[in-house]
Amino acid sequence: MTQSPSPFQTPQQRSHARAAKRDAVLRAAVQMFNERGFHQTSLDDVAARLGVSKPTIYHYLGNKDQVLFECVTIGLSQLLEAAQASREAQGSGADRLTAFLLRYAEINMDDFGRCVIRTSDEALGAESRAQFHALKRKIDTAMRQLIEEGMEDGSIAPGNAKMLAFTLAGALNWPARWHDPAGDETPAQIARHLVQHLAHGFLPR
Amino acid sequence: MTQSPSPFQTPQQRSHARAAKRDAVLRAAVQMFNERGFHQTSLDDVAARLGVSKPTIYHYLGNKDQVLFECVTIGLSQLLEAAQASREAQGSGADRLTAFLLRYAEINMDDFGRCVIRTSDEALGAESRAQFHALKRKIDTAMRQLIEEGMEDGSIAPGNAKMLAFTLAGALNWPARWHDPAGDETPAQIARHLVQHLAHGFLPR
Repeated sequence: MTQSPSPFQTPQQRSHARAAKRDAVLRAAVQMFNERGFHQTSLDDVAARLGVSKPTIYHYLGNKDQVLFECVTIGLSQLLEAAQASREAQGSGADRLTAFLLRYAEINMDDFGRCVIRTSDEALGAESRAQFHALKRKIDTAMRQLIEEGMEDGSIAPGNAKMLAFTLAGALNWPARWHDPAGDETPAQIARHLVQHLAHGFLPR
Repeated sequence: MTQSPSPFQTPQQRSHARAAKRDAVLRAAVQMFNERGFHQTSLDDVAARLGVSKPTIYHYLGNKDQVLFECVTIGLSQLLEAAQASREAQGSGADRLTAFLLRYAEINMDDFGRCVIRTSDEALGAESRAQFHALKRKIDTAMRQLIEEGMEDGSIAPGNAKMLAFTLAGALNWPARWHDPAGDETPAQIARHLVQHLAHGFLPR
């Protein structure tokens, strides 16, 4: 006969449960910010969707500004991770840039990436805004470095790396505004189309 | 001896003065929306910048939602005019598309165009939002038609016209977010750089 399970959670179980609840709150909040807009969403709305009380949201994440900052930080971390993976990968500059661009586009069609793009600086407090800028700058820098490496190894046509980075980033940020998650094409398919058009532009003739 | 001017305005002068005041209010409002964000700007702020009273703003333009809708409508009209001019121009599809893209990019770095890009649907009321969508759709359609004409006459490489339109629009919308009006390069210079990168992608090899 096996021992019946204890009705009390172990510290590890409690910690997992807490993390799972925090994730659920963040996911509900980011989806509502993306659908309705940050200014049109209250934490009461988020609490109602999850069937919890507003103090529960505060307990896990703090006030609405803190929730937004947490959401954009998650999206930016995903982008930064993708940039770092591509910078450390093998292959030509163009190959590594293309791999990064595909991930970059996909992340921007996912909940937290969409939130990064849809959030304007003005929505964040001064301190959060400085961190938001610093993280975005890191990603821009990583993209520009991949371009420069490709120009050096001859896998990317010579040109103005800064302007090319703006062109690529703009084209791949924009799906955060028009992509319909319920649409026919998957983010991966859309990402392939967009990156293919862009790569046609930056590969040497 | 010439007659001394009448201290009373003619009806024509009054109408001109009224239009000039309305323009000044719109220009101040759109600049403040772009700098601070729509939700962070009140009509009191706009009135204070112009040194007029808030009822004066209401008199010329109505409430804040109406002011925003007027601003985005001006930006969209500029884009639509550029699209129509390119559709009616002579030349290959690629030439006419390129001319349109240059204007498109420049307008997006100007006050009203920036406001179009920085305004998310959620900021507008239901009726304004429908009109905002309809106008944006007209511009998207015009861009796609130019692409299709270029693919037909062979001046643009064959491919998915819809995805190419998204790629081009995204890349050229994005300067509304990053372009610094006080920066070294003019909007015309930036537009040339971006369009050059994009054209390199869509011209046949």
